[in-house]
Amino acid sequence: MLIVQKYGGTSVGSLERIENVAKRVAKTKKEGHGVVVVVSAMSGETNKLIDFAHHFSKNPSPREMDLLLSAGERVTSALLSIALLERGYDAIALTGRQAGIYTNSVHTSARIDKIDTKAINKHLQDGKIVVIAGFQGITKESEVSTLGRGGSDLSAVAIAGAIKADLCEIYTDVDGVYTTDPRIERRAKKIDKISYDEMLEFASMGAKVLQNRSVELAKKLNVNLVTRSSFNDNEGTLITKEDNIMEQPIVSGVALDKNQARITLRNIKDEPGIAAKIFSKLAQSNINVDMIIQNVGQDGTANIGFTIPENELEKAKSVLKELDASEDTEFDSNIAKVSIVGVGMKSHSGVASRAFSALANDNINIEMISTSEIKISMIVAEKYGELAVRILHEAYGLDDRHPA
Amino acid sequence: MLIVQKYGGTSVGSLERIENVAKRVAKTKKEGHGVVVVVSAMSGETNKLIDFAHHFSKNPSPREMDLLLSAGERVTSALLSIALLERGYDAIALTGRQAGIYTNSVHTSARIDKIDTKAINKHLQDGKIVVIAGFQGITKESEVSTLGRGGSDLSAVAIAGAIKADLCEIYTDVDGVYTTDPRIERRAKKIDKISYDEMLEFASMGAKVLQNRSVELAKKLNVNLVTRSSFNDNEGTLITKEDNIMEQPIVSGVALDKNQARITLRNIKDEPGIAAKIFSKLAQSNINVDMIIQNVGQDGTANIGFTIPENELEKAKSVLKELDASEDTEFDSNIAKVSIVGVGMKSHSGVASRAFSALANDNINIEMISTSEIKISMIVAEKYGELAVRILHEAYGLDDRHPA
Repeated sequence: MLIVQKYGGTSVGSLERIENVAKRVAKTKKEGHGVVVVVSAMSGETNKLIDFAHHFSKNPSPREMDLLLSAGERVTSALLSIALLERGYDAIALTGRQAGIYTNSVHTSARIDKIDTKAINKHLQDGKIVVIAGFQGITKESEVSTLGRGGSDLSAVAIAGAIKADLCEIYTDVDGVYTTDPRIERRAKKIDKISYDEMLEFASMGAKVLQNRSVELAKKLNVNLVTRSSFNDNEGTLITKEDNIMEQPIVSGVALDKNQARITLRNIKDEPGIAAKIFSKLAQSNINVDMIIQNVGQDGTANIGFTIPENELEKAKSVLKELDASEDTEFDSNIAKVSIVGVGMKSHSGVASRAFSALANDNINIEMISTSEIKISMIVAEKYGELAVRILHEAYGLDDRHPA
Repeated sequence: MLIVQKYGGTSVGSLERIENVAKRVAKTKKEGHGVVVVVSAMSGETNKLIDFAHHFSKNPSPREMDLLLSAGERVTSALLSIALLERGYDAIALTGRQAGIYTNSVHTSARIDKIDTKAINKHLQDGKIVVIAGFQGITKESEVSTLGRGGSDLSAVAIAGAIKADLCEIYTDVDGVYTTDPRIERRAKKIDKISYDEMLEFASMGAKVLQNRSVELAKKLNVNLVTRSSFNDNEGTLITKEDNIMEQPIVSGVALDKNQARITLRNIKDEPGIAAKIFSKLAQSNINVDMIIQNVGQDGTANIGFTIPENELEKAKSVLKELDASEDTEFDSNIAKVSIVGVGMKSHSGVASRAFSALANDNINIEMISTSEIKISMIVAEKYGELAVRILHEAYGLDDRHPA
């Protein structure tokens, strides 16, 4: 097989850990696979460099920032290559430029335009382990660029797509994707396989294993993504296209998001365009509105309720104050969003009603509901958040019968 | 004027010092000059990276080492550029590659083959301060290379030569070149102007302001070099071609080298080629022989005496033991080499005799003598080293009448 392995900052956070990564990479190579390794900067390094820059300027030049930050991944890639060579494996470290990673010119959050795979393929054909500095690329103008947060994952996925790798393994400090947060429900199980779309829903609800940009790219390039831990030998979670998953459970997992706030505008005039006006103003201020409910009252006035991320509440308050759309506005951050995700929903009816009755059974009131093809989200009082997760986890048969 | 300024590791050793360098650079620009800045890695950074590499391998791949070590200068150049931009100066940081510094492929001690000045000149024409990562370049094969110890000085001199700069200022933590070590003779004076050849003699005797490679390159490219301190505003020492120095003193300075050892081989057979055999063997072992004296005795045997660096004494002992050229070999590391340097010697007679009689006056025995066109070196007992320096410093009228 041709395998791309990506090791994040924690996995290469010390010289001992880099040594450990070298062992893993060597083992994969020894098993007969072609191996490309993508590395992040040692944990803490990127933040240190950002702090350095902020010593000089609150708003440092993005071009110079990219030159600065690209140093971290160069160091890790060179060290890993040295460690592999010492173990008797033929390895070569490549910068983003040398690996042929071309990006657009949006410094500090560049997008990969294309990957010229000539150098990578040549070294693979020579039997070498190719160690690539993640997070960075080069523009048409030969300027150093970086891909923004989670950029090394993007590098790995894009490279895997370009060289048609069989697998792209993303190593972090967690074992994979779980049916829910194991700190909430100890009977949570690691998911063996999950579809891109389900993963996207999980990621957007704060599951931190992978960022959406990487999953989206993997979906687009049809890259088989595996997320697993660099600290043990457990099998991880395979993120792949729906067709590759034989047995689809109705619900794959349950997610909890407590960083939500609800805003309710009462008795606003039911005139055309009032809702559009509110939401376009919020969008202009970069406030992400999630769920929306609108009721029209009998007296011709309307109530609009919607949720936003809790940390954008103050910004939203000032936007709404300016708009002056309602004299009766309520803000509530004591809410939680509980979501069930599963591609199996598409082909099964009655999925939602099972959630509603399970929560009703325990007297948990559902305050808002929104559904998509593969997700049902419910707003409940914050204090019921964890309980709701456990109830739903059991209701959809996700509990591990043999918890650790 | 067009000025290249190079700041060494100590001068950029902390964020505060980089800020200080930014002030200096800004001042130069404000005075109306075109400015190119070459920076080293922050002091300690390069050694830290070398230690990291040695954690994995005693003998790390030179190619990967260059990739690793080049990170340090990138960081400094980006930070200085950010600091200058923040002060309202248009600046741009360039890597060795972006600055067009092409080298041969000898990793970790590459030589500069050529400098493509297109990018530097374009940015200068745009009125920008060009900040270049020193010590690094790129090979024809697009591999990152470094120039070895003192490499940033070489970068600065080569760039100054290529863009025909009026001045190349090398900033360190000392004020310039002195007539002798001020710790030995407090009446030592800073030299205002000195010729390349004199500086080469000083450098090869351990004056650490500049390495010979840089002075040689400056001489070859006819670059006016100034060495000065980044911690004060004192004028430095101009190193330039002889013709540019109007008033040549007979002697420019006195140097002391206590890291010398003398080896005396007595009663070796006076057969043809015996000396050649000894010195070629020593050369093969990379032992640098400095002064040599050979006497032929009346009985047809010869004595050979020569000096080598003290730290190569053990190596030399084993080479000589293998050769077995003499049964009467003496090793003496209690010696010091005192040298007087001056281009004025060429046109003055009696320079040497003044030294000999000055030392004789104080009963200091001269054990070996070697002379070149612009230098006279004398071996004395180590305990007389400092005294000999002070005597010669006074004898050639070098004493500052108003010492600090």
